[in-house]
Amino acid sequence: MNTFVKNAWYVAAWSEEVGRELRPRTILGEKLVLWRRSDGSPAALVDRCPHKLAPLSVGELVGDSVQCGYHGMTFDGSGRCVRVPGQSVVPPTACVRSFPLVERYGAVWIWMGEPALADPQRIVEVRRFGEPGWGLVSGQYLHFKTNYLNITDNLVDPAHTTYVHKKTIGNAAAEDVSVKVEQGDAHVCAYRWVNGSEPVPLMKAMASFVGPVDRWQYYYLHLPSTSCVDFGAVPAGSDHGEAERDSGFRSFSYNFLTPETETTTHYFWLHLRNYHVGSSDADKEVARLMTATFEEDAAILALIQQEQDRMGVREFVRLGIDNAPARIRRMVSRLQEAEIQVPMKLDPGTAGAAPCVSA
Amino acid sequence: MNTFVKNAWYVAAWSEEVGRELRPRTILGEKLVLWRRSDGSPAALVDRCPHKLAPLSVGELVGDSVQCGYHGMTFDGSGRCVRVPGQSVVPPTACVRSFPLVERYGAVWIWMGEPALADPQRIVEVRRFGEPGWGLVSGQYLHFKTNYLNITDNLVDPAHTTYVHKKTIGNAAAEDVSVKVEQGDAHVCAYRWVNGSEPVPLMKAMASFVGPVDRWQYYYLHLPSTSCVDFGAVPAGSDHGEAERDSGFRSFSYNFLTPETETTTHYFWLHLRNYHVGSSDADKEVARLMTATFEEDAAILALIQQEQDRMGVREFVRLGIDNAPARIRRMVSRLQEAEIQVPMKLDPGTAGAAPCVSA
Amino acid sequence: MNTFVKNAWYVAAWSEEVGRELRPRTILGEKLVLWRRSDGSPAALVDRCPHKLAPLSVGELVGDSVQCGYHGMTFDGSGRCVRVPGQSVVPPTACVRSFPLVERYGAVWIWMGEPALADPQRIVEVRRFGEPGWGLVSGQYLHFKTNYLNITDNLVDPAHTTYVHKKTIGNAAAEDVSVKVEQGDAHVCAYRWVNGSEPVPLMKAMASFVGPVDRWQYYYLHLPSTSCVDFGAVPAGSDHGEAERDSGFRSFSYNFLTPETETTTHYFWLHLRNYHVGSSDADKEVARLMTATFEEDAAILALIQQEQDRMGVREFVRLGIDNAPARIRRMVSRLQEAEIQVPMKLDPGTAGAAPCVSA
Repeated sequence: MNTFVKNAWYVAAWSEEVGRELRPRTILGEKLVLWRRSDGSPAALVDRCPHKLAPLSVGELVGDSVQCGYHGMTFDGSGRCVRVPGQSVVPPTACVRSFPLVERYGAVWIWMGEPALADPQRIVEVRRFGEPGWGLVSGQYLHFKTNYLNITDNLVDPAHTTYVHKKTIGNAAAEDVSVKVEQGDAHVCAYRWVNGSEPVPLMKAMASFVGPVDRWQYYYLHLPSTSCVDFGAVPAGSDHGEAERDSGFRSFSYNFLTPETETTTHYFWLHLRNYHVGSSDADKEVARLMTATFEEDAAILALIQQEQDRMGVREFVRLGIDNAPARIRRMVSRLQEAEIQVPMKLDPGTAGAAPCVSA
Repeated sequence: MNTFVKNAWYVAAWSEEVGRELRPRTILGEKLVLWRRSDGSPAALVDRCPHKLAPLSVGELVGDSVQCGYHGMTFDGSGRCVRVPGQSVVPPTACVRSFPLVERYGAVWIWMGEPALADPQRIVEVRRFGEPGWGLVSGQYLHFKTNYLNITDNLVDPAHTTYVHKKTIGNAAAEDVSVKVEQGDAHVCAYRWVNGSEPVPLMKAMASFVGPVDRWQYYYLHLPSTSCVDFGAVPAGSDHGEAERDSGFRSFSYNFLTPETETTTHYFWLHLRNYHVGSSDADKEVARLMTATFEEDAAILALIQQEQDRMGVREFVRLGIDNAPARIRRMVSRLQEAEIQVPMKLDPGTAGAAPCVSA
Repeated sequence: MNTFVKNAWYVAAWSEEVGRELRPRTILGEKLVLWRRSDGSPAALVDRCPHKLAPLSVGELVGDSVQCGYHGMTFDGSGRCVRVPGQSVVPPTACVRSFPLVERYGAVWIWMGEPALADPQRIVEVRRFGEPGWGLVSGQYLHFKTNYLNITDNLVDPAHTTYVHKKTIGNAAAEDVSVKVEQGDAHVCAYRWVNGSEPVPLMKAMASFVGPVDRWQYYYLHLPSTSCVDFGAVPAGSDHGEAERDSGFRSFSYNFLTPETETTTHYFWLHLRNYHVGSSDADKEVARLMTATFEEDAAILALIQQEQDRMGVREFVRLGIDNAPARIRRMVSRLQEAEIQVPMKLDPGTAGAAPCVSA
């Protein structure tokens, strides 16, 4: 039993990663091959020829279809076999499972579950994306050697910052303002306001506050595994509404976690900010600092995964700081259990949902 | 349950590989040590001292016997213990299983099954070997990371050539002449004649046909795992008998597959040809081209093995081109089943068949 | 079921290895973290925070306590949690198992079993250690990729010397004087005297015997895994008592084996001698020669371990030379069985014995 939620949109790749060549990528334990058709639309199939199980990704892109490198069986982006060299009849089982894809926010999103449920409306909203007055750092990728839920734990847990990130963004140790947790149908949010405080170093460097500020951190986790951190400050005493926050110092940091296997995770991230917009120096500094920070997370979470695997246990003690992480895990468990109750109804006749070679 | 046929002769090594030093080699999952006695005869034992299980191959060849590197227990080529340092009585269980060997065609052949059945007559015939007018490229070895039956599949399957070998010998895509399959008691043969056609580039380079030719390919697979490819051409309209073919342009390519483990295979090959005999340039070109070609097979077959291991399945769809491969697999299965019905009667008293340390 | 004896003192580290930083080390399959407190006393905990299982050894030493690198939970050397950042109540299960330690003979000794039984009197005696007139080579470490009982076998087995150590200390092949075996409650000793013989090369180089000598070798194995080799010579015909032996040419070689896992072993060794005392050249030569010799053992014993793992069997034949090794294995088995009868009574309330995160 794995811990994956299948009926959800995941980032499969950044748009720029998917082009006119075959790219293998494992998602939710399934080996896939991705490419882009000549009309610009992306395609994703299980990376396995149904004949002798050769990976399709070592074959060739011929027109808009993928040709197996062993005997030339050719499949279009819907997984339908369009050619078997040397024979005119295509066996009915000669098809490959394909997956619904949507391109949005500079990324190719994939739906690994029941195709009938793949409603693009369910893709998480990336706030301020593409809006004027917001600078974007996108296309960022890291590989984590840990289960994705260890990362979601971490992304709603401000407490680790002092210890894990002491070389990068830590040093917030003095903050004894407690974190509040709010829960919705499909998200958890841990947040705090530190009012009337000195601007933190980043704000001093990047903004021009003259007095104390009201500073906020909102750690959203949208099920199953999209994190959004809303971070910023306004002059102390300002109103705390959306409009005031947008006119203060503000950033949105999005982390899209796509489980690769039970113990490894694709970590796609992007960052939006309303300061130093258009400055490539600031872009580089954001990318550098956040990469360094996330690599610190990756290091400790990989060690934790190893020990969890060895012990067959995930934790021995639960602390107060585990409130938000525990809520997320419970909600994810409920999603999984609900999925298990309803087996997928893959229709072999439906292009894009051919089940024949997918377990 | 493995897929090995034990009652068969396999190439254990090229003759030149077996000399006056100890050579470890795993065959049919069994670790062996090979060496040559002072009278020139080869010997093969299980590579494991029965005392503390030290590999005998890290010991020393002392005279014609192998001396364990741990406590000096010494075994002759029949597996009999001839010395236990420090004690005069040799325990009756102190013996090591040996294996029947025959040297032929420049190779040392081994029999891994019931010794009583080890009839040298059953070694496959290598046609034209040692005959005047035939050039030989021998002593060639490759290691394949795939089950040997994936290779036998491949060696009676002309269809993969267009896709796997497009950088080497491929480009025969235009050939729509279908392959016929013929089956004997202990072999399968897939073959085709392409009559009245232009000579292929190799023939243009190496022979001097002036008009069209009748070209043939015979892919023999002798059970369990010797492949012979008879390839050549005669002037169009000639008789197609053996004598005419020998006087045309002709080669025999032999591949002797020896399973190492369930997922790896020793690939010994040699090549006989009736053109440019004695030319070391031609020898080198044959060795270079065939090595490059076989390495292309090794690459795709290793990927297939990995995916078959992961899925626990070997194929999802059967095509027309699988006729000859499927016949071979059925015949091999029958050989295996017959072997399972008749347990080996290894006689501990028979030199060369001591069973004591072999599971 | 492992082969470890838990109620015993093992060398965890040389004293010089344990300082004011965190050192991870696996002992008896348990991952530990070692450090030294500011009063000089060593501490050892299970290397695993009970919260999310982060290895404590990647955290920080803060004062005399270890602070987890993930959320800052802090444990003193007894395993008691002294701080949970962000909350005032420490959960009662927030503790880490600690282990009794004693520092003696330049080493930190650890007791992995029932803490109540950890009597320092049970630490093996290292004869002549610290006495005037004896030179010491200490602090030596090797890592063996084999079960510790394969090493104890080897350390009471003079017969392997001729074969394994032919490049170092071997060449004693001519010795046909048989080995006697004596057994006590907690030790086995294999020994022999070679009387009236020529001094061996080492004695010629290091001592000044003018005539033949009486030479001895005593191979002690103190349960479960401390080896002591008493080696030397007196002028032929001398009395063989302790005092005479001390005034002859004599050395004591101690090997302290600490199982790391079922298939790997920490090999700590030291060497005492009554010749060339104070000569750093002689010290270096002893260290060089013994390291080279033990590495020869390590090589063959690693190969044996691999084959034993593969076969699921340890030996197929028992020889006369296996008398002392077999006695040790029987005695160790009895110790283990006795331990299994009496489950550990770890008292969670006892500092130094908190069981909460140790399986």
